[in-house]
Amino acid sequence: MAANNINQCVRDMKDARERSTAAPGVMAQVLRGKEEWQTRRKISEVMSTDPVFDKSKRPFLSRSESYHTGLANMKRLVELSYAHGWSEGDFNVALSLIDEWLPFNLHATAFHPVIMSQGSLEQVAEYGSRSAHHAIIGCYAQTELGHGSNVNKLETTATYLPNSQEFEIHSPTFTSAKWWIGGLAKTATHAVVQAQLILPGEKNVGPHLFIVQLRSLETHEPLQGISLGDIGPKAFNGFSAVDNGFATFDHVRIPRSAMLSKFAQVTPEGKYVQPPHAKLSFGGMIYIRSGMITQAGWVLAKGATISIRYCTVRRQGGEDGTMERQVITYPSVYTRLLPALAKAYAFILLGRDLSGLFHSMSSRLARGDTSLLAETHAISSGLKAVVTTQSLDALETTRRSMGGHGYSAFAEVGRIWAKHVPSATFEGDNYVLDGQVVRAALKSLRHLQLAGFAAPPLPSSRYLRLLAPGTSRPAFRSDANWEDPSVPVLLLEWKAALLVEAHARSVQSGNIVAGLEHRVALAVTEAFMATRIEDSIQKLASLPPRERKVLNELLLLFLLTSLEAALSDIFAFSLIQPLHTAEDATAPLREAISRICRSLLPEAIALTDAFGFSDWELDSSLGVYDGNVYQALWDRAQEEPLNQRQVVEGYAEFIKPILKMGEQAVRAKKDRAKL
Amino acid sequence: MAANNINQCVRDMKDARERSTAAPGVMAQVLRGKEEWQTRRKISEVMSTDPVFDKSKRPFLSRSESYHTGLANMKRLVELSYAHGWSEGDFNVALSLIDEWLPFNLHATAFHPVIMSQGSLEQVAEYGSRSAHHAIIGCYAQTELGHGSNVNKLETTATYLPNSQEFEIHSPTFTSAKWWIGGLAKTATHAVVQAQLILPGEKNVGPHLFIVQLRSLETHEPLQGISLGDIGPKAFNGFSAVDNGFATFDHVRIPRSAMLSKFAQVTPEGKYVQPPHAKLSFGGMIYIRSGMITQAGWVLAKGATISIRYCTVRRQGGEDGTMERQVITYPSVYTRLLPALAKAYAFILLGRDLSGLFHSMSSRLARGDTSLLAETHAISSGLKAVVTTQSLDALETTRRSMGGHGYSAFAEVGRIWAKHVPSATFEGDNYVLDGQVVRAALKSLRHLQLAGFAAPPLPSSRYLRLLAPGTSRPAFRSDANWEDPSVPVLLLEWKAALLVEAHARSVQSGNIVAGLEHRVALAVTEAFMATRIEDSIQKLASLPPRERKVLNELLLLFLLTSLEAALSDIFAFSLIQPLHTAEDATAPLREAISRICRSLLPEAIALTDAFGFSDWELDSSLGVYDGNVYQALWDRAQEEPLNQRQVVEGYAEFIKPILKMGEQAVRAKKDRAKL
Repeated sequence: MAANNINQCVRDMKDARERSTAAPGVMAQVLRGKEEWQTRRKISEVMSTDPVFDKSKRPFLSRSESYHTGLANMKRLVELSYAHGWSEGDFNVALSLIDEWLPFNLHATAFHPVIMSQGSLEQVAEYGSRSAHHAIIGCYAQTELGHGSNVNKLETTATYLPNSQEFEIHSPTFTSAKWWIGGLAKTATHAVVQAQLILPGEKNVGPHLFIVQLRSLETHEPLQGISLGDIGPKAFNGFSAVDNGFATFDHVRIPRSAMLSKFAQVTPEGKYVQPPHAKLSFGGMIYIRSGMITQAGWVLAKGATISIRYCTVRRQGGEDGTMERQVITYPSVYTRLLPALAKAYAFILLGRDLSGLFHSMSSRLARGDTSLLAETHAISSGLKAVVTTQSLDALETTRRSMGGHGYSAFAEVGRIWAKHVPSATFEGDNYVLDGQVVRAALKSLRHLQLAGFAAPPLPSSRYLRLLAPGTSRPAFRSDANWEDPSVPVLLLEWKAALLVEAHARSVQSGNIVAGLEHRVALAVTEAFMATRIEDSIQKLASLPPRERKVLNELLLLFLLTSLEAALSDIFAFSLIQPLHTAEDATAPLREAISRICRSLLPEAIALTDAFGFSDWELDSSLGVYDGNVYQALWDRAQEEPLNQRQVVEGYAEFIKPILKMGEQAVRAKKDRAKL
Repeated sequence: MAANNINQCVRDMKDARERSTAAPGVMAQVLRGKEEWQTRRKISEVMSTDPVFDKSKRPFLSRSESYHTGLANMKRLVELSYAHGWSEGDFNVALSLIDEWLPFNLHATAFHPVIMSQGSLEQVAEYGSRSAHHAIIGCYAQTELGHGSNVNKLETTATYLPNSQEFEIHSPTFTSAKWWIGGLAKTATHAVVQAQLILPGEKNVGPHLFIVQLRSLETHEPLQGISLGDIGPKAFNGFSAVDNGFATFDHVRIPRSAMLSKFAQVTPEGKYVQPPHAKLSFGGMIYIRSGMITQAGWVLAKGATISIRYCTVRRQGGEDGTMERQVITYPSVYTRLLPALAKAYAFILLGRDLSGLFHSMSSRLARGDTSLLAETHAISSGLKAVVTTQSLDALETTRRSMGGHGYSAFAEVGRIWAKHVPSATFEGDNYVLDGQVVRAALKSLRHLQLAGFAAPPLPSSRYLRLLAPGTSRPAFRSDANWEDPSVPVLLLEWKAALLVEAHARSVQSGNIVAGLEHRVALAVTEAFMATRIEDSIQKLASLPPRERKVLNELLLLFLLTSLEAALSDIFAFSLIQPLHTAEDATAPLREAISRICRSLLPEAIALTDAFGFSDWELDSSLGVYDGNVYQALWDRAQEEPLNQRQVVEGYAEFIKPILKMGEQAVRAKKDRAKL
């Protein structure tokens, strides 16, 4: 009897749904507010039945076809937004449901927001409305061929000419070409260009932002002096619908009014008017990053959903009776997948949390209070780096957990990863961000030391309280009560505190310890994450008991597996003492992880259902809601373009001649043998 | 002054070459024998100038175009092999230089070898020669839609019909369709099919191999009863030139002579003749895996070469004078890249080592001696899993170290990873292999215990000697002499021994410790790897002093970073004692790693040059030999198909209407405001 019978798959999925005690609908409310769910449902209903948004042909498209499809998606989205009177928020929900970067995503996430937040009132009036309605399509031109992370060294110049009251935008070197700019190559009509502002007397006052029209609004031809092009395909076939482009400027004149001047300004005579605070523009970066945290959680949610569903219906090996075993029941599988699922929940909650911090910082900023800015910026840097890296690792884990079929494009997890993977390098390379987190942590430590640990540390530096003189280190034994969330939290905080202290010492002594900066940044951020997740556990109190228990366990699993990943640093400071040196000191912790996983296993499908993905949204043969994975794989394969002919196009030109040459060679050999 | 000046790039690369003290040519001899280098050079010269083997257009191809190009490559290879009288070995070198799986790669690596090794003399005579000359093109049809790892449960049947002395090949269920088979969809004329052999009386004697003709050699149409098709694109755009296919068989008759019968046989009456040893066919698997180890090393060598070259000429931040800093000089960069480079060398050496073991096992097997079979099989399982997983991680590390440009398809590392990543799941899913390693280790432990630790353990179980009663555990302190290779080796051996012992205990007690099996398998394999690398260090003695010193340090770096990655398990058994509990007990080890990295840094370019990749072979804009990376990126981008028109094809249909709708909306809004 065949275990992987297709009816059995559907039965297995149904059984799994019935086995769970927690209600997906209740858990869904923890992930998004009620209104957010309603909006998504409303928009998803419109889009999922529209043939323009059919996702199933994506794997077959060439890059140019992907771009073309992206344009078709754009036009339809704009039409629908007019037809249904979508708000800007609705529009962004629609973009996220497509789950593919379109040529104008950067218009929505960078060009438009930067005009609204950094433009003067006149600029907002002139460009903001046209941008909001896509009467112009913009991109955000910062990175250059030769410079990414070090924005201060960008080479494009904007030289002010007082006589004509114009700026001259210019690319003085080969490496000053703008590069990687989403939408720039073929789509955008305008760009916000970051360039060194040069004032009369060759005075360089550093990079500023300028609105530059790139193409004629009538013919779409590039304007004089501007060369535009596409930088070519991306790795893993990622971002294939986006025309990431290059641009060079040859003494292009723009009016004085084209410099974004909410903060800094240039007078008609060419005098520079300073912004009130050097880092006001950091606000936008923090906002983008809080979105990235949530996003990383939802990305991982997709991988976890697909993989958990597939492993629930896939049966292989280890027979009990006539039936092979559901793959999800192997410890080596569920101890990989459930922690990934826990991460998805944790990252979504952390992203919401960071958005909250961002909003309270913003309202303080509006009152001229910059006290939370540096702090929030450092947290956002750390979280961005840790969460993008960890979600990528976990996502690939969910893909590999599916074995061979995970490598099919129809599994979809590969495409999700390919789209998500640049988040480790863009919006701040994760390794460069480490440095920012460490610097902020060392600064906080110095402040506290100077203040004799009297001042209450800010939320993200709370762990530093442990370094106050006289604080005694806890004596955790390997058989601590691992079911108590405060245990991993305190251990992660101690680890962060001791690592920051060790780093401060190593800076003084000049000893270079490989990887220390990364360990410190990770520790500081994980300590923060752990305390916030501990808070989130508290907040679950209002849920019905079954859902509370399940989510409690899931977040505890997040804390314990975070601790597990950090064990080498925990031990490096002797924070856990073994009972006997001959025994595995990590066994009790890992037994607890096993126990929690086994307790969560019957809830796994309900926990993924709570993410609320429709089959259209997921577009994965292995992640179909009803579990009928083999039928789905089969059906998708029939659409493969190579299958549209029985004998393939290259047969006569290539295959037949190879066989003929071979036949001749065999015959010749036989003939020689006969002689 | 622009730091990323293109002339500066070339100068930086030249300087880096001049700075190194070790000669690439000398180090190259450690990686391949002299003859192997000569063969590669000879074949590379022919291929690199042939337009059919131009690699530069690959990123622009659709899947169907990739397949088509793959066929063109095949035909040209066959032509060249006739023209130049290439041997089978030469032909395989040519295949590896292409570095893209072609539709007939599985013909060369599976179909042909399995016929030669498992066919009877008659079968070798009939099929072997035709296969060698590509008068037939074959594939290896094992995996099914419903079954991969559990080969015993394959559903395809081969029922023997004594009356006609035929087998009937049949796909009895939906999930029994052969699936994933490289070359099956559109290219292969024949398949070796794995099917349950059913003898008269419905006696199932398990999976056996059968040669089945799939297509007419005249028309290429599938033969009656056989349905063939392509399973669709793969994740990350990987394997895009290969027509991985499906097949179903509807009562297809083949002659009795079509069962591969070097070992097991079926008599005309339908009696089963047992093979002399159940696991004789394991030999092939071990051979394939030893190739995979070496291959993983060379794959990583490419990533390391590209990334180290790019980071040598890329300058960013941290100015000294007017010039920005070479990215490779940042500790966070070189402490990632040099360990990856060390892994590449170590894996290449380990692969050669395993080939040696394989050959000595084979010659014993030929004498009927199976004593080394189980042992070599277990080692090969462990090495395959560890080396593929670690090389993939390290490869992605080399890509991310390049920051933004690493995500360009022209960097090439993404494509290499996409092609390499299924090696973690095929030829044994790495997580399934863990189980095999653990079972073998527990068996070795029991043997030794029964023998009172008297019998000398086999090479791969040498670490178990440490469990002999009375062996005292070493007392390593955190400031041990980390420059002595025997220190990390002994620690890794102790860790393996104690983990195996702990696992044996947990099996007895029934406690489930999450992840323990993986930790044991990893530990056992790493201990073996470490001892072999220690041997390799001994063998460097014959090299000239400068190269010996450099390679010594590189392999020591491999050992120390392996230990670093294993620290949590080292501490779990208290194998390293801190000097003071308040200090980072890992600092001295990591200071040693830093020191070695700094010492190796000036040799990095020479160490990558020793891999001997030509620009044609690498096909990477960021890894060009002369360092002129920006020019290379620029030139490649100009070839992008989207750049062949200034105003893109979809403009009139999509972009213009969006802008027009927007313009109207803005005007309507203004009009309303006027009212």
